[in-house]
Amino acid sequence: MAKNFTKRSDNYSEWYNELVVRADLAENSAVRGCMVIKPYGYAIWEKMQRALDDMFKATGHQNAYFPLFIPKSFFEKEAEHVEGFAKECAIVTHHRLKPKPDGKGLEPDPEARLEEELIVRPTSETIIWDTYRKWIQSYRDLPILCNQWANVVRWEMRTRMFLRTAEFLWQEGHTAHETKEEAIEETEKMLDVYADFAHGFMAMPVLKGIKTANERFAGAIDTYCIEAMMQDGRALQAGTSHFLGQNFAKAFDVKFLSRENKLEYVWATSWGVSTRLMGALIMTHSDDHGLVLPPKLAPIQVAIIPIYRGDEQKAMVDKEAERIMKELREKGISVKYDDRDTYKPGWKFNEYEFKGVPVRITVGARDLAKGLVEIARRDELSKESVSCEEACGKVVELMDEIQENLFNKALKFREDNTREVDTWEEFEKEIEKGGFLSCHWDGSSETEDKIKELTRATIRCIPMEESKEEGKCILSGNPSPQRVIFARAY
Amino acid sequence: MAKNFTKRSDNYSEWYNELVVRADLAENSAVRGCMVIKPYGYAIWEKMQRALDDMFKATGHQNAYFPLFIPKSFFEKEAEHVEGFAKECAIVTHHRLKPKPDGKGLEPDPEARLEEELIVRPTSETIIWDTYRKWIQSYRDLPILCNQWANVVRWEMRTRMFLRTAEFLWQEGHTAHETKEEAIEETEKMLDVYADFAHGFMAMPVLKGIKTANERFAGAIDTYCIEAMMQDGRALQAGTSHFLGQNFAKAFDVKFLSRENKLEYVWATSWGVSTRLMGALIMTHSDDHGLVLPPKLAPIQVAIIPIYRGDEQKAMVDKEAERIMKELREKGISVKYDDRDTYKPGWKFNEYEFKGVPVRITVGARDLAKGLVEIARRDELSKESVSCEEACGKVVELMDEIQENLFNKALKFREDNTREVDTWEEFEKEIEKGGFLSCHWDGSSETEDKIKELTRATIRCIPMEESKEEGKCILSGNPSPQRVIFARAY
Repeated sequence: MAKNFTKRSDNYSEWYNELVVRADLAENSAVRGCMVIKPYGYAIWEKMQRALDDMFKATGHQNAYFPLFIPKSFFEKEAEHVEGFAKECAIVTHHRLKPKPDGKGLEPDPEARLEEELIVRPTSETIIWDTYRKWIQSYRDLPILCNQWANVVRWEMRTRMFLRTAEFLWQEGHTAHETKEEAIEETEKMLDVYADFAHGFMAMPVLKGIKTANERFAGAIDTYCIEAMMQDGRALQAGTSHFLGQNFAKAFDVKFLSRENKLEYVWATSWGVSTRLMGALIMTHSDDHGLVLPPKLAPIQVAIIPIYRGDEQKAMVDKEAERIMKELREKGISVKYDDRDTYKPGWKFNEYEFKGVPVRITVGARDLAKGLVEIARRDELSKESVSCEEACGKVVELMDEIQENLFNKALKFREDNTREVDTWEEFEKEIEKGGFLSCHWDGSSETEDKIKELTRATIRCIPMEESKEEGKCILSGNPSPQRVIFARAY
Repeated sequence: MAKNFTKRSDNYSEWYNELVVRADLAENSAVRGCMVIKPYGYAIWEKMQRALDDMFKATGHQNAYFPLFIPKSFFEKEAEHVEGFAKECAIVTHHRLKPKPDGKGLEPDPEARLEEELIVRPTSETIIWDTYRKWIQSYRDLPILCNQWANVVRWEMRTRMFLRTAEFLWQEGHTAHETKEEAIEETEKMLDVYADFAHGFMAMPVLKGIKTANERFAGAIDTYCIEAMMQDGRALQAGTSHFLGQNFAKAFDVKFLSRENKLEYVWATSWGVSTRLMGALIMTHSDDHGLVLPPKLAPIQVAIIPIYRGDEQKAMVDKEAERIMKELREKGISVKYDDRDTYKPGWKFNEYEFKGVPVRITVGARDLAKGLVEIARRDELSKESVSCEEACGKVVELMDEIQENLFNKALKFREDNTREVDTWEEFEKEIEKGGFLSCHWDGSSETEDKIKELTRATIRCIPMEESKEEGKCILSGNPSPQRVIFARAY
């Protein structure tokens, strides 16, 4: 157990902050709200990127890159979008520094003031649709299926590493289509890609659903989302996919000649996930001993630690460790053999446990004399002795077993903390316990606002996979066509 | 031959600009000096990234991510660095927009002026060394071998796509070491990585050398570089690796407890290549028919084009094309079968030729009846008929052959255009012809400045692999320890 490490039950928020720093994932920088993603944290993000990128390409998408800066006037073209995104943002006003009159330090040169201010992109719909206008003339140019891996900036007042930072890394897909139906199909397809990624790689169960008008992306007709439940019972929006209708095509005058030889506005989608997924991953699986990583996203899947006295034992232990390492690597498993003599085995055990390495193999001289090594799994904090011959086979099995076990544990947690609630009295009581409340709602923004004001709970989504059972709104008592998910959220 | 496409001999600069746009590599955006990298161009950049990233990791480096913004005061800490980088840059002064008093449009909110301006990173030494101070206490924390893939901004007055843009994409390595020797070794090692990449992947010969004081990175003790020669005879700096000494450690107070238990300043290097390499790649190999790509960086290595009449022939042609495609893909070759019926074969031939696809296979119904297909290679614009059985084997061979041929052609071009020049009269004449001039120079910045003023030629590098033949400076006649390379440069 890591020393002086806050327990989840004592202070969940503090536990998270400490974990991020002590597991070498990230740290705050000298720039307000901006974090440094450390090599170990970045290696996890790279694994996420690679898996997602492969999935995007398998569904026909290509990467491209659009400018970091967006002219201020672009935001003014889409009325809702400007409301949502042109408020708290980083504004570039000058392009030169000059020495101050007193010679001490630098200041923006008034002569180098930009004619039009540039906004550091908070999201790229506007600059991309300004570009698509040039790419699209006829239906033959459609669909356009582009994705961009980029940094974006939103000037958040309260920031937390990975969960909400002023600058963050993300991908944003921007697609253009001939028809409404095709655009909606794309929106739903990418939501499925996100859900498959969350389940298959992050071992994180997510609910697929649609956002209410209040929670919709600024400029979208419909926002689809995946929602996950963290261990404190709060919801975390893990990814969104937007059906944008013809809003951006109209704002940027993007028309195409249809198969029927008519000029029509193009239909659009956009979809994104960000380094926020790192926060979701951490909070879904980790425990009071530190980080827990699913094997598919672990930069180091297996750590091998030697125990020996003297050079003769060292040689024997090295030989076996290297044999195991070689065999595992041939099977595509990433292994680190930590034979540093500057740290003791106990220190190393703690280190790899805290960093969430899924499997640890201890190759000890005494065990080895009996033909045994010790295999420990991080998810269950259990260990067992196995014969040297069986070690690699066992580890290969464990990769799948741990991945599955983490998903099942998280799914059970979500199920245990999802409750149907039918009265307001019950709602007020249950929301304090955390988790997802499945309730009837009358469909009005007023009711939603009222509930938020009274309880800080928001509608996370209108689930897509739920049965359409009718009922009465928990607050207003008005008719409701189906249950929706309420929760307090990150 | 592409229609209305400027020839290199008519206007090299125009040829380049047209090529970039017409081959779908990039285009100018609505933001001054910022380009949009289009999917086809980005796919080439992704291949470069992947190859470089693998090489960085194979030499022990890890990726990380540091903030986009740098506090203005950070630049003031390293005297030379501020001179070089804090001049033409993008300055963030406000963090909120508000509606203008007349209600028309938005303006920066004076209430949201930042206390200290933020600079969009032109390079990250300062923010990274501010971070390393927290990471380094003792020699046990060294070396730190980090790399970052990122966007950077330098407010260039005259921009050209890929070659010089306000925003560009790059990687920047930043390493920290115990000793001077180790840091110099790292600097040279990364220069070798760049040279190996240029040779092995880009098929582009480069000269390795050291920059003169005039051309050195602001804040470096020594800047190592790789220099390539473009087809117009001008030089292009393709990558740099800097030995930074203890300059940044001193500016940001980064000390470590040495093995001798003394507090010492850390030794530093930094090294980078950027999307400028795209410009170098284009200008090294392409011709009056469009882009030419080396197979190792081609997003599509083989294009298969069917020729047929009627459904029966189509079925036959499809079958053979699919067989070839399958076999090539199994060998790791990327193939596109373009069976669109909205374009004619001749249009497709031009398309893939212009886009530099290394090999085209034409599967025609008439040839197929004789058991033949046609294989065309882009580098030589030649074609031959081969039997269906031999087709895949032939293509596999061509991948290596074309890669090698492109390198050899480029090397021959450079050799043909590199001349030893020993008198000033000759220099003035020869520099007009383009190419590299290998000359003696007295080592003074004054002479270098004078030569630049008189001829626009700069010293590209002091070559590392040249013999140390002594001589007399071409301009001043003063003694010179070795020849250096002069050229006009991008």
